[in-house]
Amino acid sequence: MGETTILQFAPFSSAVDAGFWHKFTQLKLDVFHLSEDAVPITGSYVNSDAPGLPSRLSVEYDALDRNRVPSKWACSAVGTLINTNTVEEFRNRSKQELLKSSASVLWDAIISGSALEKPSVLASFLMFTFADLKKYHYYYWFAFPAFTLPKTIPLVKQPQCVSLILTDEQIASLVLACEGLGTDVDRGFFTLTQSGNEFGIHLLKDYPQIRTAASGTDREVYLAFSDPCTLPQNPGWPLRNLLTLVTLKWSHLWSVYKILCLRIRTRSGTKDATHSLVVDVDLKGVIDTDNPPDLPPFLGWEKNERGKMGPRMVNLSANMDPIRLAESAVDLNLKLMRWRVAPLLDLPIIQNTRCLLLGSGTLGCSVARCLLGWGVEHLTLLDSGKVSYSNPVRQNLFKFKDCLNGGTYKAVAAADALVEIYPKVNCKGVILNIPMPGHTVSESLEQQVRSDVSVLEQLVDDHDVVFLLMDSRESRWLPTVLGAAKHKIVLTAALGFDSYLVIRHGYRCKETELEEGTASSKPSVSNSSALRGSIPGNLLGCYFCNDVVAPGDSTRDRTLDQQCTVTRPGISYLAAAHVTELMVSILQHPDRGLAEARLNDKADVKEGVLGPVPHSIRGFLGRHQLLTPASTAFQQCSGCCDKVISAYREKGFEFLLKVFNSSIYLEEVSGLSELHHCVDDSQIWELSDSEEEME
Amino acid sequence: MGETTILQFAPFSSAVDAGFWHKFTQLKLDVFHLSEDAVPITGSYVNSDAPGLPSRLSVEYDALDRNRVPSKWACSAVGTLINTNTVEEFRNRSKQELLKSSASVLWDAIISGSALEKPSVLASFLMFTFADLKKYHYYYWFAFPAFTLPKTIPLVKQPQCVSLILTDEQIASLVLACEGLGTDVDRGFFTLTQSGNEFGIHLLKDYPQIRTAASGTDREVYLAFSDPCTLPQNPGWPLRNLLTLVTLKWSHLWSVYKILCLRIRTRSGTKDATHSLVVDVDLKGVIDTDNPPDLPPFLGWEKNERGKMGPRMVNLSANMDPIRLAESAVDLNLKLMRWRVAPLLDLPIIQNTRCLLLGSGTLGCSVARCLLGWGVEHLTLLDSGKVSYSNPVRQNLFKFKDCLNGGTYKAVAAADALVEIYPKVNCKGVILNIPMPGHTVSESLEQQVRSDVSVLEQLVDDHDVVFLLMDSRESRWLPTVLGAAKHKIVLTAALGFDSYLVIRHGYRCKETELEEGTASSKPSVSNSSALRGSIPGNLLGCYFCNDVVAPGDSTRDRTLDQQCTVTRPGISYLAAAHVTELMVSILQHPDRGLAEARLNDKADVKEGVLGPVPHSIRGFLGRHQLLTPASTAFQQCSGCCDKVISAYREKGFEFLLKVFNSSIYLEEVSGLSELHHCVDDSQIWELSDSEEEME
Repeated sequence: MGETTILQFAPFSSAVDAGFWHKFTQLKLDVFHLSEDAVPITGSYVNSDAPGLPSRLSVEYDALDRNRVPSKWACSAVGTLINTNTVEEFRNRSKQELLKSSASVLWDAIISGSALEKPSVLASFLMFTFADLKKYHYYYWFAFPAFTLPKTIPLVKQPQCVSLILTDEQIASLVLACEGLGTDVDRGFFTLTQSGNEFGIHLLKDYPQIRTAASGTDREVYLAFSDPCTLPQNPGWPLRNLLTLVTLKWSHLWSVYKILCLRIRTRSGTKDATHSLVVDVDLKGVIDTDNPPDLPPFLGWEKNERGKMGPRMVNLSANMDPIRLAESAVDLNLKLMRWRVAPLLDLPIIQNTRCLLLGSGTLGCSVARCLLGWGVEHLTLLDSGKVSYSNPVRQNLFKFKDCLNGGTYKAVAAADALVEIYPKVNCKGVILNIPMPGHTVSESLEQQVRSDVSVLEQLVDDHDVVFLLMDSRESRWLPTVLGAAKHKIVLTAALGFDSYLVIRHGYRCKETELEEGTASSKPSVSNSSALRGSIPGNLLGCYFCNDVVAPGDSTRDRTLDQQCTVTRPGISYLAAAHVTELMVSILQHPDRGLAEARLNDKADVKEGVLGPVPHSIRGFLGRHQLLTPASTAFQQCSGCCDKVISAYREKGFEFLLKVFNSSIYLEEVSGLSELHHCVDDSQIWELSDSEEEME
Repeated sequence: MGETTILQFAPFSSAVDAGFWHKFTQLKLDVFHLSEDAVPITGSYVNSDAPGLPSRLSVEYDALDRNRVPSKWACSAVGTLINTNTVEEFRNRSKQELLKSSASVLWDAIISGSALEKPSVLASFLMFTFADLKKYHYYYWFAFPAFTLPKTIPLVKQPQCVSLILTDEQIASLVLACEGLGTDVDRGFFTLTQSGNEFGIHLLKDYPQIRTAASGTDREVYLAFSDPCTLPQNPGWPLRNLLTLVTLKWSHLWSVYKILCLRIRTRSGTKDATHSLVVDVDLKGVIDTDNPPDLPPFLGWEKNERGKMGPRMVNLSANMDPIRLAESAVDLNLKLMRWRVAPLLDLPIIQNTRCLLLGSGTLGCSVARCLLGWGVEHLTLLDSGKVSYSNPVRQNLFKFKDCLNGGTYKAVAAADALVEIYPKVNCKGVILNIPMPGHTVSESLEQQVRSDVSVLEQLVDDHDVVFLLMDSRESRWLPTVLGAAKHKIVLTAALGFDSYLVIRHGYRCKETELEEGTASSKPSVSNSSALRGSIPGNLLGCYFCNDVVAPGDSTRDRTLDQQCTVTRPGISYLAAAHVTELMVSILQHPDRGLAEARLNDKADVKEGVLGPVPHSIRGFLGRHQLLTPASTAFQQCSGCCDKVISAYREKGFEFLLKVFNSSIYLEEVSGLSELHHCVDDSQIWELSDSEEEME
């Protein structure tokens, strides 16, 4: 025997794939939420690296996937992930305690012998993290727990390259035998036997039995492990815990062990193991195996790139496509709501709702922005006007430059602005005049109006929710009819000087309508909902249900203060916020558009994830009042009654044209005209909807 | 006598100065409002034009100024302006009736003889207009009423140039005599006498007496008028009504009249009248002067540029500086509020209020936009953060491009965006960290913090209203102290998931404070306001008054959902609108910051132009509730109590530094710590103010 020296191990270096962080971010948002519990994670390492590379313990994109299929060419490492929610917690958590708890688990596995059954635990690791998901900064610190047991490991002789010990033929045979690793026999740690030129692989736990049987024969028995290290004189970290296991379990049987540090790499197309090491160690007397310690001294925290004991940080934002970054950031912001405040919030249902905004002025702009905030990705804005100089200070998608040279079309400018805010949004601006009752269509214009109606019909078909955000009462009529006829959710917002009105129209659910038939008059509110003081969503009134005159030409003869936005600037923000949130509340209600509205505060209604869904919201800024009255549909309503809807469904454009040419015709169809004599006009709700300029 | 021919007159052409429309727009917005009443207006015409120019009746920029000083070189025309509020009214008003009413006035003046006293009425005109002030399109139609009386005017001989009748010397003498016009003798219509080479000017009404006196002498007596026409054979329009007057008044005395159509222009530096005309007419028998008609046939509507009877339109937007256009358009929009809805609204007080917005995130952006809508022109935004990818969909001054390359500073991006919206705004972005209680200042940072405090102090000094729109409780502490110490209006807005809080801090009015002294504890609510159930503005609590712990480091240890905007997107719009409108309501209250807040609905408080001014507004979106609780200042409040304010005033930065280093010190100063044992923490109002990302 030559001089005895001490065996030294090359530690692992952690290598986290960027894909892992993406996957982790997803899981954090969708599954882990605020949990800081330890999560199992699987790492891997290989023994096939070229010289010069560090021993890497890799964490791949699928490291958290419990159904992960391990690679045939890599060894598994059993890991634990602990993520903190704050950087302070990450900083302040006792690193000693963290490592101790990992080490304890490993020690238990060694003592109990379960490490013999499942040797990959010997390459266990801890991943301690804090993820700043707003910035895509990930802080992480790995520990590869190991015991200083034995404290030192005397070498019988210096580690030797197998090429000095085995013939080329033998090495080729060794390589061939090792092809079988990873199926029945663990690739990480195993028993290797050699008889002349023949090699065999066996389970690690069978080592004592095989060595005993080989005793006195020419059969050589190796403790073997896949060695991630590429250094010529040192084995890698996995051997450290293997030797602790051996010391504990078998050092009372044998003190000297021959170890094969298996390294296989492909050179010139063939597998080669000539650079594997053989290490002979002598564990005699290093421990009293009968009285193992409770927990031997442990170590294992990884140094960072500056060579210090400390965490590493990876900033993924720099490498990501900015649009993709924006997308995930917005997504993150929304998902955060679910973490603590509203776990039942269904975000996809909102994001996938296609919204049609009729009117791209003060209300249209603000509603579009609010919808963007909710993650709505499919928006269409409609308006026939152009941006004028007074608009940008109140219409929050426009800028001064949009007013120049006669002004950009509002619908187009708004759609462009939305894309500038959030490139992922699928947004279209449509320049269109909505035909109106009482706005006579001359013969020369008939084709144009016919085409406008057809475009509008198609738009309503193509969307799920229709917002009526225009400036005149009568321009809301056609969309009210189309929305009702086509079973859409229709929402109206209208502004006064210091008041506003937001209303959801009664929802003609396709299924309900089929059951009830369309021709007959609507059923009255059912007993059950009446008893509870509520009105089901399909029986609610529309914007016109409170009117006793059909919409006519109200924009004519409007003075300047009626044409313009004569409203306190805050009003449009209030109305826009409420109408958007009303849509979201509807979508988050189990009955969606059919959600019942309470008639009074005491009514016991079914609530959605975001609370009860009112029929209408009327706000009065001067008095700081907010009312949520509900009312049933009016049987002679010019906008939503069955007679009108049926007439539209049966006669289509011909019916509409008659209405455009005479609002009296509309009153006749709806039955309003019969009613006129018995209604007191002074009780009509007054709320100006003048909001935009007159064309 | 040669052949008799008929006298024909060259009609007036209207010429409206662009300056008039600007002036008119101002008056319409500030004075006329919705009135369609006739307004006196003064036109003018000259008799000095070069040949080829039409007879222009000019309406200058000061045509509506009652104190207008008439030009010495122009004749006045008495006009009437009628402006309609809608284009329909402009179109539909009976033009016949309009002209008739003008003609009647003129006819009355002629019959009554008042036209002799004030002959300029003979050149009267009507200006009928509709101004589309949103587009700077002005529609106008002039009428120059005249009577076909006599129906035809037989000429004694063809109109002759004076140079054919008078010698050069005589013409020079004529010019000299006419220098005297415009002082005692009306420049438009007068009597002219000639004796040999001598000319004299006299009042029109003296014609009969002068002519009678001249009878049998060589003295020639002319009816004379300043003739705007430049045609060689025709006099201008003013002669038409002069001859009607003469026919009515004097044709029973004389039938033949010699008329001098005075035209004087400067040629080669000297005044020349050689192109004046002399017209001899014979009015014999054209009318029965004893039985004048009630109203003879009249005419006078001007043809437009296309030669049609119809209005003209001038589009001034094309000629205006776009920034100026935007300015007037915004101004117009605001002034419209005063026309009908809120005549007492004081807009300048709002526009001149300098607003400091601390925080340029979700709230800061929306509040800035709302303020812009109200016409606020001086805005400063402060923030230390940068625009991140999740911001633009919720923070309505940012775009995707602001997130690139690490993000633009929010304060800067917001200020830039505001200028892009409204170039006239005076807006600055300040990048600054607000020092906070309990956020220890290391020695190396002390200079920086000292400088930050000093910048903030200066900013508070330089503004009238301070908005606290940040994301953490403790960052509101320093501005609360500074705002109180410096007698500013301080407003806070804070967001929860589906709730929000808006509060105006108790207002330390300089005057009130001086009266009461600062060292003593605040007086309790006076009996009178207590009886009425209100709290005066100076005794109201601040944001911290409901707290029983001093602000500390609340951003530490915040999990992701607490760092971010975990709020329904509509919430920030509601809070921003309410906090802006609260400021406006305060400014519109006669007591401004001292406006009392009602304790309950029944309280009979003094209201402002925009209604009562609540102390705080608490909104709950889920339940659609809006509360406006009021409470008095807390005597141990860490933000606004006298002890804290005095300590700051006396010790300045040294006091602040101690607070930054220890919030316990703050509790000691305020007296909060003494109080801790007797307060039930569970009753503390809970409202998250997490809004922005953590730095």
